[in-house]
Amino acid sequence: MHQDLGSSLDLPATTPEPPYYAVIFTSTRTEGDNGYADMANAMVELARQQPGFLGVESARSESGLGITVSYWNSLESIRAWKENEVHLEAQRRGRAEWYQVYHTRVSKIDYDYRVER
Amino acid sequence: MHQDLGSSLDLPATTPEPPYYAVIFTSTRTEGDNGYADMANAMVELARQQPGFLGVESARSESGLGITVSYWNSLESIRAWKENEVHLEAQRRGRAEWYQVYHTRVSKIDYDYRVER
Repeated sequence: MHQDLGSSLDLPATTPEPPYYAVIFTSTRTEGDNGYADMANAMVELARQQPGFLGVESARSESGLGITVSYWNSLESIRAWKENEVHLEAQRRGRAEWYQVYHTRVSKIDYDYRVER
Repeated sequence: MHQDLGSSLDLPATTPEPPYYAVIFTSTRTEGDNGYADMANAMVELARQQPGFLGVESARSESGLGITVSYWNSLESIRAWKENEVHLEAQRRGRAEWYQVYHTRVSKIDYDYRVER
């Protein structure tokens, strides 16, 4: 059922006509997994179930830079997701254990285009 | 000298106080390199030299999804970069040869925060 919402992580997310909102989360990791991979997957699945969720894209380069972009229909949806209790615990562990540096940017998408073969 | 502008691709970009603008470019590749890696590197270096460039982040996952986010001080800077002649040729080859699917989103960053150890 979640496949209806933003489909897979392996493709550019399919999103509605702008305007909509994006959270750009860029990070580098600390050493070791320490439960990170399981939590990251769980957070993607939980995000997909939130009101206003439109899609998510995620990639981590060999050099260690990770970029996750999630798309939302409103700033209120973004705020509610940030304050989700399970997500708050993940954020706390992220600060304490998993991330060396992270940068979160909240933006409004005004214009987009998609090209497919 | 370019290291002053957005520093390395291996870290979250250091950007000024919002508001500023982001171009979120998400893609999947066709098979084979076909000159892609050289052009991608050249485009990052060329972007760094453009007026209004603030930083860039790029990652490609093992599954093949690539995310590149470039940051700019104005929509005019984004437009000028899109219309740069060398970049136009790269865009043409991207559509013709390198990308299976791509999605470009132009957004305004209103709010951000960074956490570093």
